[in-house]
Amino acid sequence: MKVYFDNAASTPIDKRVVDLMHETSIKYYANPSSVHENGRISRSLIETSRKNIANILNTRPGNIFFTSGGTEADNMAINCTIEKYGLRHAITTRIAHHAVLYPLEFLAKQNKIKLSYVKINDKGQVNLDDLNNLLKKNDRTFVSIMHANNEIGTIQPINEISKICKNYSAIFHSDTVQTIGHYPFDMQKLDVDFMAASAHKFHGPKGIGFIYISENIDINPLLRGGGQERNMRPGTENICSILGMDEAMTIAYSNIIDDTHYIKNIKGYMINELRKHIKGVDFYGTSESLQNDSLYTVLTVSIPENKASEMLLFNLDILGVACSGGSACASGALKGSHVFSCIDPNSKKTGIRFSFSKFNTKKEVDHTIKCLKKILYD
Amino acid sequence: MKVYFDNAASTPIDKRVVDLMHETSIKYYANPSSVHENGRISRSLIETSRKNIANILNTRPGNIFFTSGGTEADNMAINCTIEKYGLRHAITTRIAHHAVLYPLEFLAKQNKIKLSYVKINDKGQVNLDDLNNLLKKNDRTFVSIMHANNEIGTIQPINEISKICKNYSAIFHSDTVQTIGHYPFDMQKLDVDFMAASAHKFHGPKGIGFIYISENIDINPLLRGGGQERNMRPGTENICSILGMDEAMTIAYSNIIDDTHYIKNIKGYMINELRKHIKGVDFYGTSESLQNDSLYTVLTVSIPENKASEMLLFNLDILGVACSGGSACASGALKGSHVFSCIDPNSKKTGIRFSFSKFNTKKEVDHTIKCLKKILYD
Repeated sequence: MKVYFDNAASTPIDKRVVDLMHETSIKYYANPSSVHENGRISRSLIETSRKNIANILNTRPGNIFFTSGGTEADNMAINCTIEKYGLRHAITTRIAHHAVLYPLEFLAKQNKIKLSYVKINDKGQVNLDDLNNLLKKNDRTFVSIMHANNEIGTIQPINEISKICKNYSAIFHSDTVQTIGHYPFDMQKLDVDFMAASAHKFHGPKGIGFIYISENIDINPLLRGGGQERNMRPGTENICSILGMDEAMTIAYSNIIDDTHYIKNIKGYMINELRKHIKGVDFYGTSESLQNDSLYTVLTVSIPENKASEMLLFNLDILGVACSGGSACASGALKGSHVFSCIDPNSKKTGIRFSFSKFNTKKEVDHTIKCLKKILYD
Repeated sequence: MKVYFDNAASTPIDKRVVDLMHETSIKYYANPSSVHENGRISRSLIETSRKNIANILNTRPGNIFFTSGGTEADNMAINCTIEKYGLRHAITTRIAHHAVLYPLEFLAKQNKIKLSYVKINDKGQVNLDDLNNLLKKNDRTFVSIMHANNEIGTIQPINEISKICKNYSAIFHSDTVQTIGHYPFDMQKLDVDFMAASAHKFHGPKGIGFIYISENIDINPLLRGGGQERNMRPGTENICSILGMDEAMTIAYSNIIDDTHYIKNIKGYMINELRKHIKGVDFYGTSESLQNDSLYTVLTVSIPENKASEMLLFNLDILGVACSGGSACASGALKGSHVFSCIDPNSKKTGIRFSFSKFNTKKEVDHTIKCLKKILYD
């Protein structure tokens, strides 16, 4: 049995999405900026996708800009805002994704901004009093706090955070890469200036994403070139991936209540089974919660050190269970997860992230538990 | 009859490429940075593609970095080099693509560099004496001169230009978006520091490209985040598009001599037919040449003003002939081509670019000539 519990790293593409992409790749090959018929049709399909995505988020198409993925969207929000508004201070958390941390830290290193890290507790939850204090003591600030942490699943109250930010006229960016496609968003009610999305996190294609930019914001583009995306993102539009992302997002939101319930059930089942079978198992962040403080697709567990725990991921993989020891983006770096070590600095435990999708089953949980027992105790 | 003569804007994707992408999208859904089996296979497929592409260019895989397309590649070369090396001077031509012109002009506007435009003649050919002079009079320089102009097809002698650049220790970037996939490159002989490629210009997918960076160059990434592409380009790798680009490039170079001959023949035929049937027809740049000074896929013609010429593109489109009035990237801008107006500033002629691929036929030329005659003279 093969088990894929690494959906926070990337989800299997939906068959309907990849079929649509195949068909549209062949049919709509023109450059969407070309003024002839095939070009105009391509352009209009892209604008329909923009409208569909905007509708899902209850915002205007003009607030959606297509990018090559979440990293570009995060970089764009950070670099372009700080430059355009001449901001000298930014706030984030130490458990932000590297696509947020690294551009901010680079700006700080260049002395373009002062970078503050808002306090978090041992579950990775932002201390809102500290956020208030940091905003009070500083000039106009760029705040970047992710919606759900990709490694430990902790969800931040971005609605509350956005209100605090607005009190101080701060500009608020939220990396929503793990939550767009999984949670409903109503941009008429949620006062966030920037959000980032990546299609491959919700059964769409890789290499495509978007940035939501609120109409209060006026920035220059990150890349410079052609007039695509209303002069905000140059480069021939990746039409078949844009249409694929639209399709994936439409599918994701068409059945989101049932899908959420289904996946939450798997997570809950796995929590119980782990408690039953794995001695001393513990959970990172808010991971063991089935409430709104934890991403329902992520369950990050810690397993007490024993002779087999160090090779746990490796052995699970050999037995056909794909999961991860942190974020995939950091895997190439050959060092431990910055999130795990921030939350639990002196731990000798092994952190493992299981992350689920609607394509998983309870049987796969059973198999995984069996494998864990075999590796740890046989 | 439908005729697609807008291949310089974008080429139809090859059926073999899109089939491969469909298959690999489904099979290799894991994040290529994940350490489990599906992740490792994905990673190894990406590295095989990198190796294949490097082999075609006779360079090392370590010199190839995947990007979201040509624009990102150009922006990366320009911004990261000027920043890392602290360069204060850059040279380009006024007929460069906007993906080169705009980032350079932005840096000039910010007083980070002085930007010089090397003289070109009325065919768009760079004046090499002027290039020498500009390099002589200035500090270490960033030079960006495109291989083939996308709007008028003029090819610059980049081998000679690279030697001039090396004489002055200048760093040389060439936008090769119109020529990679259409001309052989031997990076053991060609001393260029950066080249940019875009897969959809050679029957590959949109939204993927690469940058060639010579081993003499050491820059920081343009985007910041995960450790992908050996810390040079963060973001989950777009595996299925990378594999698709590899396939498209492999196909392109597998039969490049015959394909070149075939397309050149179509271009030559169209030149003759135009001369025969369209009074006063003229050619932009080196367009009418079938030699190495002109891109064999591009034929840009000028047609004397008459009552029908203003609506020519529009009417060709109605009759099913897709071609363009400049680059597609600038079409959204609702102003004329900066290349046409630079080469031929006072012209009242209508510029039309016909651009070919191996999927075109002489019959399509005949049909296009018939349509042109109908529109202009009926």
